Amino acid sequence: MASNYSPKHFLVTFPAEYVAHVEINRADKLNSFFEAMWLELRDIFGQLSHDPNVRAVVLSGAGSRAFTAGLDVKAASKGLLGPKPDGDAARNAALFRRHIASFQDCITAVEKCEKPVIAAMHGINFGLGIDLSAATDIRYCAADTKFSVKEVDIGLAADIGTLSRLPKAVGSYSWVKEVCLTARVFGAQEAKEVGYVSAVFDNKEVMIEKALGTAKLIASKSPVAVQGTKELLNWSIDHSVQDGLRYTGVWNSAALQTDDISNALLSGLEKRTPTFEKL
Amino acid sequence: MASNYSPKHFLVTFPAEYVAHVEINRADKLNSFFEAMWLELRDIFGQLSHDPNVRAVVLSGAGSRAFTAGLDVKAASKGLLGPKPDGDAARNAALFRRHIASFQDCITAVEKCEKPVIAAMHGINFGLGIDLSAATDIRYCAADTKFSVKEVDIGLAADIGTLSRLPKAVGSYSWVKEVCLTARVFGAQEAKEVGYVSAVFDNKEVMIEKALGTAKLIASKSPVAVQGTKELLNWSIDHSVQDGLRYTGVWNSAALQTDDISNALLSGLEKRTPTFEKL
Amino acid sequence: MASNYSPKHFLVTFPAEYVAHVEINRADKLNSFFEAMWLELRDIFGQLSHDPNVRAVVLSGAGSRAFTAGLDVKAASKGLLGPKPDGDAARNAALFRRHIASFQDCITAVEKCEKPVIAAMHGINFGLGIDLSAATDIRYCAADTKFSVKEVDIGLAADIGTLSRLPKAVGSYSWVKEVCLTARVFGAQEAKEVGYVSAVFDNKEVMIEKALGTAKLIASKSPVAVQGTKELLNWSIDHSVQDGLRYTGVWNSAALQTDDISNALLSGLEKRTPTFEKL
Amino acid sequence: MASNYSPKHFLVTFPAEYVAHVEINRADKLNSFFEAMWLELRDIFGQLSHDPNVRAVVLSGAGSRAFTAGLDVKAASKGLLGPKPDGDAARNAALFRRHIASFQDCITAVEKCEKPVIAAMHGINFGLGIDLSAATDIRYCAADTKFSVKEVDIGLAADIGTLSRLPKAVGSYSWVKEVCLTARVFGAQEAKEVGYVSAVFDNKEVMIEKALGTAKLIASKSPVAVQGTKELLNWSIDHSVQDGLRYTGVWNSAALQTDDISNALLSGLEKRTPTFEKL
Amino acid sequence: MASNYSPKHFLVTFPAEYVAHVEINRADKLNSFFEAMWLELRDIFGQLSHDPNVRAVVLSGAGSRAFTAGLDVKAASKGLLGPKPDGDAARNAALFRRHIASFQDCITAVEKCEKPVIAAMHGINFGLGIDLSAATDIRYCAADTKFSVKEVDIGLAADIGTLSRLPKAVGSYSWVKEVCLTARVFGAQEAKEVGYVSAVFDNKEVMIEKALGTAKLIASKSPVAVQGTKELLNWSIDHSVQDGLRYTGVWNSAALQTDDISNALLSGLEKRTPTFEKL
Amino acid sequence: MASNYSPKHFLVTFPAEYVAHVEINRADKLNSFFEAMWLELRDIFGQLSHDPNVRAVVLSGAGSRAFTAGLDVKAASKGLLGPKPDGDAARNAALFRRHIASFQDCITAVEKCEKPVIAAMHGINFGLGIDLSAATDIRYCAADTKFSVKEVDIGLAADIGTLSRLPKAVGSYSWVKEVCLTARVFGAQEAKEVGYVSAVFDNKEVMIEKALGTAKLIASKSPVAVQGTKELLNWSIDHSVQDGLRYTGVWNSAALQTDDISNALLSGLEKRTPTFEKL
Repeated sequence: MASNYSPKHFLVTFPAEYVAHVEINRADKLNSFFEAMWLELRDIFGQLSHDPNVRAVVLSGAGSRAFTAGLDVKAASKGLLGPKPDGDAARNAALFRRHIASFQDCITAVEKCEKPVIAAMHGINFGLGIDLSAATDIRYCAADTKFSVKEVDIGLAADIGTLSRLPKAVGSYSWVKEVCLTARVFGAQEAKEVGYVSAVFDNKEVMIEKALGTAKLIASKSPVAVQGTKELLNWSIDHSVQDGLRYTGVWNSAALQTDDISNALLSGLEKRTPTFEKL
Repeated sequence: MASNYSPKHFLVTFPAEYVAHVEINRADKLNSFFEAMWLELRDIFGQLSHDPNVRAVVLSGAGSRAFTAGLDVKAASKGLLGPKPDGDAARNAALFRRHIASFQDCITAVEKCEKPVIAAMHGINFGLGIDLSAATDIRYCAADTKFSVKEVDIGLAADIGTLSRLPKAVGSYSWVKEVCLTARVFGAQEAKEVGYVSAVFDNKEVMIEKALGTAKLIASKSPVAVQGTKELLNWSIDHSVQDGLRYTGVWNSAALQTDDISNALLSGLEKRTPTFEKL
Repeated sequence: MASNYSPKHFLVTFPAEYVAHVEINRADKLNSFFEAMWLELRDIFGQLSHDPNVRAVVLSGAGSRAFTAGLDVKAASKGLLGPKPDGDAARNAALFRRHIASFQDCITAVEKCEKPVIAAMHGINFGLGIDLSAATDIRYCAADTKFSVKEVDIGLAADIGTLSRLPKAVGSYSWVKEVCLTARVFGAQEAKEVGYVSAVFDNKEVMIEKALGTAKLIASKSPVAVQGTKELLNWSIDHSVQDGLRYTGVWNSAALQTDDISNALLSGLEKRTPTFEKL
Repeated sequence: MASNYSPKHFLVTFPAEYVAHVEINRADKLNSFFEAMWLELRDIFGQLSHDPNVRAVVLSGAGSRAFTAGLDVKAASKGLLGPKPDGDAARNAALFRRHIASFQDCITAVEKCEKPVIAAMHGINFGLGIDLSAATDIRYCAADTKFSVKEVDIGLAADIGTLSRLPKAVGSYSWVKEVCLTARVFGAQEAKEVGYVSAVFDNKEVMIEKALGTAKLIASKSPVAVQGTKELLNWSIDHSVQDGLRYTGVWNSAALQTDDISNALLSGLEKRTPTFEKL
Repeated sequence: MASNYSPKHFLVTFPAEYVAHVEINRADKLNSFFEAMWLELRDIFGQLSHDPNVRAVVLSGAGSRAFTAGLDVKAASKGLLGPKPDGDAARNAALFRRHIASFQDCITAVEKCEKPVIAAMHGINFGLGIDLSAATDIRYCAADTKFSVKEVDIGLAADIGTLSRLPKAVGSYSWVKEVCLTARVFGAQEAKEVGYVSAVFDNKEVMIEKALGTAKLIASKSPVAVQGTKELLNWSIDHSVQDGLRYTGVWNSAALQTDDISNALLSGLEKRTPTFEKL
Repeated sequence: MASNYSPKHFLVTFPAEYVAHVEINRADKLNSFFEAMWLELRDIFGQLSHDPNVRAVVLSGAGSRAFTAGLDVKAASKGLLGPKPDGDAARNAALFRRHIASFQDCITAVEKCEKPVIAAMHGINFGLGIDLSAATDIRYCAADTKFSVKEVDIGLAADIGTLSRLPKAVGSYSWVKEVCLTARVFGAQEAKEVGYVSAVFDNKEVMIEKALGTAKLIASKSPVAVQGTKELLNWSIDHSVQDGLRYTGVWNSAALQTDDISNALLSGLEKRTPTFEKL
């Protein structure tokens, strides 16, 4: 299966049936991103989304030092942050707007991936790392993780997703504003306390093992049930309860016709592990 | 008062003035639900909603073992989950959609009940138990409570309210997705930490006593103030701050004309307990 | 700078460059509010919002006993809560509606202030104190702070912002409903655990020092970045993720053209503190 | 089939296969409504909604003089508009709110009926007649129809649906406000010009014939297609285009699995009339 | 009454009881606007909104040539459109944003005025004239009126309300886009056909007479009913039908307690003209 | 310029500076669509969207007989409508959902194209032709055009955009439902009366000439103003007036910094035609 994936800047492996592991693979530069990387990220998650051999994805950073240090500012400074175009401000604005929209879409590809994505973070996780992990479904981290919504420190408001998703990912709006307005670094324990991550593990190795364990657990369940659950939760975060219920009813009007339900029920009664058709 | 309520599958008692206690009364089957039960639940909460003798409601499960084990899968498997209808998929979908909508409405009756509802949970609380408690206002549990968003384990996405309400009931979206996608069991302490419940008590007896205490406290206050507070909070969770403020202003344009305000203020000055007209 | 601000009921000082400190200055009455005060509050924050010498604001209560005890009920009882007008209920409603809208706008002025506002609370913080602090960006408190959503105790549903903002400020909807429906007092530690405040400090002095420290930190950063971050977070709390991303892209299409970015980047490389043009 | 429907205040007939005709049957009182009538209306449309023998509904008024003169003010004046309750204004408000909500639900039953409803109007059509016809799908009228949003003339804002639905039913917001604020009578031709009705016919007889013709035409088509079309249009009027497309995709994911499509396509090729399974 | 209104740039008269007539009073410059004028407009409509002696307002332009030629470009070119500030583009953007918001608020004051506003237009009506009339409730025009959404001709997208309100004021989205994208002039008849105005009159004199007639008609009705109708229609244009019904129910829970209803009903029975208390 | 566009199924020409003309080029099959065509359509409009040499686009159908007959049912019946997959209904639903979403995105590419698109329609315009033209900005047609929302006739609810966009494109909701529920054919005059098209021309030649004229007119104006106007109108149709105003203010905070404004103003004073920088 892995042979179908041959990205340049990521490692894609299949450590277990139906489980994909995507690693940001630029450890020598703290896994910092330049444009070709986020375009590739979009393609990888677009492919995973519809790959019937994939039911859950773990996303982590290669090497021992960082999930990702965020934007490769050196590379970016030649483009986005470099010498400003000469055109008038309105035309510059149009170019920036298109560029931001394209960049945002790359990160949103993780959210739109129909299969659950588990972010497994360690070490440095700054700037774009928050934009990126905020678009995943489940977030784990190692005890050494250092987080920062770094953007204000380089003179800009985070625009690739953090400011849109963080207030809905975490309960304390005061905390969200504090870390976004100050760019202060916070650690794994604090991330757990405010609910940004669900669990903290001793080190990267343990965390990866646990993340893969959760991925395997999810992959063992009906993909109809799992993919529906992801989609319905994503819908709910943005809609009223009544619209949530109505959309859910329409969704399940097809999903409840699956054989997976009787399959799961019978396996339960017979105390055996069910197997489910691909999706 | 209790004589006005004679449900088959629930116990409705009035342990204190203005306080109703609804117990799911099928302890021998772990308080699991079949269709007649949720239809009856709807009727009970519809009646409580407009009953001037009721100002607060406690909802708990009879017996020592469970708040509710959720859907009675055996009963359901004959209906919803049983042999699929022969018609084409679109017609099946229409039937499912109608059924889900009707089922959802029964649970939503708890949310729509104009009087605050306190869920007092213990023991097993799986599947429908989460859908149900997510529609209450205040959630308490005993230390022995075991929760699970169980639906993915039987091949379906929870469709009776959990996926629409849980992301708004709890701050950590990562945690919400984790428990919904894995169906893993979590305990009382974890439920408290993520904010699904407001308090954990040593055992069912203590919890019921405390839940009734909170209900009595609420029942001692102006029902105009209390019922307005519930409605306005329910509106706010689904609307923008500006729409919240505007709706609130219209609501209170009538509510502020109540005698309860001068009544409450005077009682405060005179250090006596106010009594309020029924509502 | 302070000379431009000469309110009657508040103290406005400038303890550091670009940092304003607004104190509710009616300590002898526990900083309780009457109408002239909230009208003045609106004017102060309207002025701070566009004052280029201000980049961050700390809001606290004078004296040792209270952030604010809320509405001055005695003063209010002559107006809002006093003898009801004689006109018919619909006309009374119109008067109340206009009054509430005007009052809400005064508190919303804090939310709309383009510069981040840090609430630094101590002692008694009841009723209007919650409405007010819920409209700030970052909330700190001293260990002695006693909070209460007091309104139900005087027969009304809180209508100046608490019920619209609290469900979005804090993750646990059960907790929000409990404190709003019971008016029970909760302390600093509980406020921290549910995320209403980001930090608790030993006493008022330490807290004010820390709040000013955070304000100075924010004031040291690009005001383009900071003010954009506040605005985008405020937008996000009320809109879908997709609408958040789209609005963010448009916002940053102008903001990214600032010199602050190269200024910040260069200062970083040269390890010196950047200075930013006023805004 | 008609035998299953035996309302007191309406006539329900089945003039053609799959076509129901509901007539408001109180011609001697200009088909004006009292409470038992709107409760019965709700039940009729609830039943029609799920009746597999029904695919389209025509709604008209018995007799030669009126679709409906609206609320029977004489009857209403004993209840809704009669002597005001003695309780305080807030408690009165709660009673009114519940009553309005219940009344609105009865009219909304027409909108929620899964089968398209064609209003065929003639003669007097005042007040509640607009609330009611605004909840139907297609509106026809006879040349003699006189419409009026009459409510302001009796001192109230229309609250059973007109003010919520009319701005979305008709393109000219200026016209909507004019007729709602002045209660002026407008005729069939004007109703056609602004788009409130789709067609005007010479007299009641011709109109009924045409309305039944349209109903028969709709009834001859796939009920999967027709009912989906109604639901999706109702969703779209209240949601963004993107939410419309997303909901539509989920809806059709089940609906496209129907045999009706190949049935319709084959019948088209073979130039014969298709028959579709009931729904 | 008129003595309470003494604006510089407008004429405010009271041609009939409860009817105010506001005239843009700069005929020698085709009633074109500069900043002091829109600030004054805001104050006038703010005052009318709460003036119990006012129940309906007619807004027209003085002189024979124009309702308004829009922005006084000469005046504006010194400010808004004049030499651009030297600051960086992000700081300029902040200044523009504040200026636009303040300008928009002035026009929105017409929409927010609690009393219905009838625009009576003649002659030239360009640019800001569309922004302004789009914020009124009922639009009439004389046969000689020439309309143009002029902004694209001076290099900008209309930002004071036209682009936000026009798509909701008129049914044909194709037509809206055509006139906004081309700035082509359209006449009274076309404005009537697409529904932007409700009526066209032969000349200004007839139109003013008719507009005052409509204002008098509205002013003769219950102000509780009329003001509620305006507010509920404004709410509906921006919300779903369900939210419309819910808000309406809350609104009328107070409004139905008015004496105006029995007053109106009795007057109707007794065939006399009711008089209503001020509001 | 045309050399940069070499689609297989469309003709792309540049009949005037900054004006592109896209023709559906399958006249022998009545310009009916198969999958490769809508994928190509997406690519063309994606390219036009950012092409600085394009400021307005005309979209028409080649040949004398049809704008488009819609979906090529023969081709489609092998795919979408052909033999149903064997998998269970839930898995089929997932495939349909993905396919619909991809198809919708192709049509939405026309709406998202930053340059205004004028649909110039003639002859047969069925099914997909409505989905497609509903996504354009301005709609013209020749007198011989025959429209039909054809989908219910082949057993399905239109799912590529018609049901989401038509209720917002046309004022009469009754008419929208009638044509969508009956699939009846309507002509050019009716399309004009309800506002679906802005103008009807005698024949295809005249219409194309007029459409190109409008395109040239738009292309002669500031592209900053024109593209902003399109975007802001598209935003407004889906958002509240307040959100429209706020988004507009942010958009124009950059756009007002353009040189196009002084350029346009000066050209106006000097009575010469302005030229604007590319965008």
